[in-house]
Amino acid sequence: MSEPFDAVQVIVAKRDGKVIPDPQIDWVVDAYTRGVVADEQMSSLAMAILQRGMTRGEIARWTQAMINTGVRLDFSGLGKATADKHSTGGVGDKITLPLAPLVASFGVAVPQLSGRGLGHTGGTLDKLESLAGWRADVSNEDMHAQLKDVGAVICAAGTQLAPADKKLYALRDVTGTVESIPMIAASVMSKKIAEGTGVLVLDVKVGSGAFMKDLDQARELARTMVDLGTDAGVVTSALLTDMSTPLGLAIGNANEVAESIEVLAGGGPADVVELTVALAREMLAGAGLRDVDPADALKDGSAMDSWRRMIAAQGGDPDTPLTLSPLTEEVRAEADGYVTRLDALGAGIAAWRLGAGRERQGAPVVFGAGIMLNKQLGDPVRKGDVIMTLYAETPERMSRGLSALGEACDGAGTIEVGDSPVERTLFLDSVGTRS
Amino acid sequence: MSEPFDAVQVIVAKRDGKVIPDPQIDWVVDAYTRGVVADEQMSSLAMAILQRGMTRGEIARWTQAMINTGVRLDFSGLGKATADKHSTGGVGDKITLPLAPLVASFGVAVPQLSGRGLGHTGGTLDKLESLAGWRADVSNEDMHAQLKDVGAVICAAGTQLAPADKKLYALRDVTGTVESIPMIAASVMSKKIAEGTGVLVLDVKVGSGAFMKDLDQARELARTMVDLGTDAGVVTSALLTDMSTPLGLAIGNANEVAESIEVLAGGGPADVVELTVALAREMLAGAGLRDVDPADALKDGSAMDSWRRMIAAQGGDPDTPLTLSPLTEEVRAEADGYVTRLDALGAGIAAWRLGAGRERQGAPVVFGAGIMLNKQLGDPVRKGDVIMTLYAETPERMSRGLSALGEACDGAGTIEVGDSPVERTLFLDSVGTRS
Repeated sequence: MSEPFDAVQVIVAKRDGKVIPDPQIDWVVDAYTRGVVADEQMSSLAMAILQRGMTRGEIARWTQAMINTGVRLDFSGLGKATADKHSTGGVGDKITLPLAPLVASFGVAVPQLSGRGLGHTGGTLDKLESLAGWRADVSNEDMHAQLKDVGAVICAAGTQLAPADKKLYALRDVTGTVESIPMIAASVMSKKIAEGTGVLVLDVKVGSGAFMKDLDQARELARTMVDLGTDAGVVTSALLTDMSTPLGLAIGNANEVAESIEVLAGGGPADVVELTVALAREMLAGAGLRDVDPADALKDGSAMDSWRRMIAAQGGDPDTPLTLSPLTEEVRAEADGYVTRLDALGAGIAAWRLGAGRERQGAPVVFGAGIMLNKQLGDPVRKGDVIMTLYAETPERMSRGLSALGEACDGAGTIEVGDSPVERTLFLDSVGTRS
Repeated sequence: MSEPFDAVQVIVAKRDGKVIPDPQIDWVVDAYTRGVVADEQMSSLAMAILQRGMTRGEIARWTQAMINTGVRLDFSGLGKATADKHSTGGVGDKITLPLAPLVASFGVAVPQLSGRGLGHTGGTLDKLESLAGWRADVSNEDMHAQLKDVGAVICAAGTQLAPADKKLYALRDVTGTVESIPMIAASVMSKKIAEGTGVLVLDVKVGSGAFMKDLDQARELARTMVDLGTDAGVVTSALLTDMSTPLGLAIGNANEVAESIEVLAGGGPADVVELTVALAREMLAGAGLRDVDPADALKDGSAMDSWRRMIAAQGGDPDTPLTLSPLTEEVRAEADGYVTRLDALGAGIAAWRLGAGRERQGAPVVFGAGIMLNKQLGDPVRKGDVIMTLYAETPERMSRGLSALGEACDGAGTIEVGDSPVERTLFLDSVGTRS
């Protein structure tokens, strides 16, 4: 019953711009998880942290305190290196799907704990459920066995990893305290460190479709997360990559799996291939493999083998037909020129409304709903050319998707055709990379 | 069910330093009172307000929104001017007791809604309950009748006045969001404006025993409150007065009533008399009476008449014997010199621990417990002279009071005797005064 500190003293310290002492950080995170610190106290503290910031030491301690509220997985008994990737989320970002089996094909284990779709950004687990029979829930024992045998597992994070983060994230969502770099970094890294990976590569997205709209903020977030991972003994680095326009041609669920399979078969859109290879190279370098070319494993079928075995190990049929929804609408160029805007946020919201995302927490996603791009940013077009095709199950969903496309960018729309060609820079910066 | 706004949008606006639009202020205060905006959302907003501040317009709208959650009293039917005083709270601050009947003796009605003790600061209602039979709870009808007949009433604020403030104050208390000048001003002024007084004089205390330790902050608070009152049509002004050392010689409950009666009888400590007269002069000037000297009414017995009638009208016996608790301890000078420190906070906490204040919300106070000063700040002393006398009901309480005295001022103690005389400046500044 007797608590060593009082929530108000912790809040007041941060409110007044002071550093919270380590024992108070440990206590407040743990006491909040136990329900001793009330929601209204933690939200006030979260707002004070958002306004006042945290030192590197405070963020590290806060992250560790969140990890300590749950279990920490341990793959040291596997006898091989472990590497994982985390993306801060984007539109058309199916990279985890080809990446995990690709890295595993080099003998590095990939324990990839993934999530569900959130707002306009898709979820890796939702996409994989397009494959008949595939199960996102894997026990710790089965995860170990699959990593030993197949080398890669993509599954849902259990509730035993950093439960403080789960509770705090839900609170921040309703109290206007999401947009704090220290708390975003602590949230991501508490789960990734608890997951027990040896190497972690972060894909920090920048642009309209990403959480970070601005490169400077993204750099700060990347640096904060790399520091956190490094301080916790995880070999951590980050790529900062463009999310002003969607990745690849597919935005949805089943179509993103199909595009991933194309990449694993040695084809697929250039941007998806480039990013997959760059992240794989960085993960492998982190694990000590510097003299290999991941692109080879896409061409020689070894990554595809890993993929098929990974899907099958979780009950999935790798040969499930991946069909799109029956209703279609085509969006065409209204003039000759170049695609000068193809906005990631607009496309992401449209795909969400078409049915690829959830209407509310716990609702199902429509696997076949979404968008296929017929053109990408910078492509030349002639008047009447199809720029994108929308897929939905019902006219009502189709109409909502079309509206979202038009309303994007404050009413300026998702798509713009102009006179001058524009070029996309996919790789914007990096922090602590080894490849 | 359908709400026009979302709490997160209001929080995010203030978090990012924007002005909250009027309709959103109206909504968030009302929705919080209705329980639609959750505690964790309001505490996050309160922290954002504390960090980012509010414009004069926002504070005025927020105050009005809090008033609108309850009723506003109306004394326009009384046929006389109404004037009220509010002190931000101090140690030995019994000024309301002689002041209300003093002003009433000039034909200006004083509808004084008062509070209970809070921490180390005493409560006017607690003090008056030292008088046998006296009731703090007065219905609106009885309040009107007493103001018409006697001219002064000191009573508890009903729950129907600004209920939003009551709920918000309790929340701020546990979430580290008390120390916001806009929210302090809105809290005080919502109740005072709802109370329906025509004239309001604020006694803003400055110093160790006050909420505001610093003169600049106190000026900002005074200016904010005067603006709020003025904008709401209340004739408002403020005196900024010293609270680095206690007011008068009595700190407690029964002894403060006894000291007030001395003042009403034309005697009493000079500082209590000066402050009472200055506040009375300002209240009377606000009500248009500029050519009267309140000091006369203390000398000619007319203020005392008002007092006795006011106490009797609320069931109290004005002749109740006001005795102190039986156990006593004297604190003596350890050298010749002058009293160079007699700290208000230290003395206030000691009196609280002796039993004059509450151990927890709802607990009773001990009327006879407290402190009598034998010397005041600046007085010359000889070694062995008694500086103060402590009164308690039990040895345990006495020992807690003595410890608090010694621990005050970060362990330097409440009392210091030095070589050079020091002088107290009681009146530090004023805002918008008319006298």
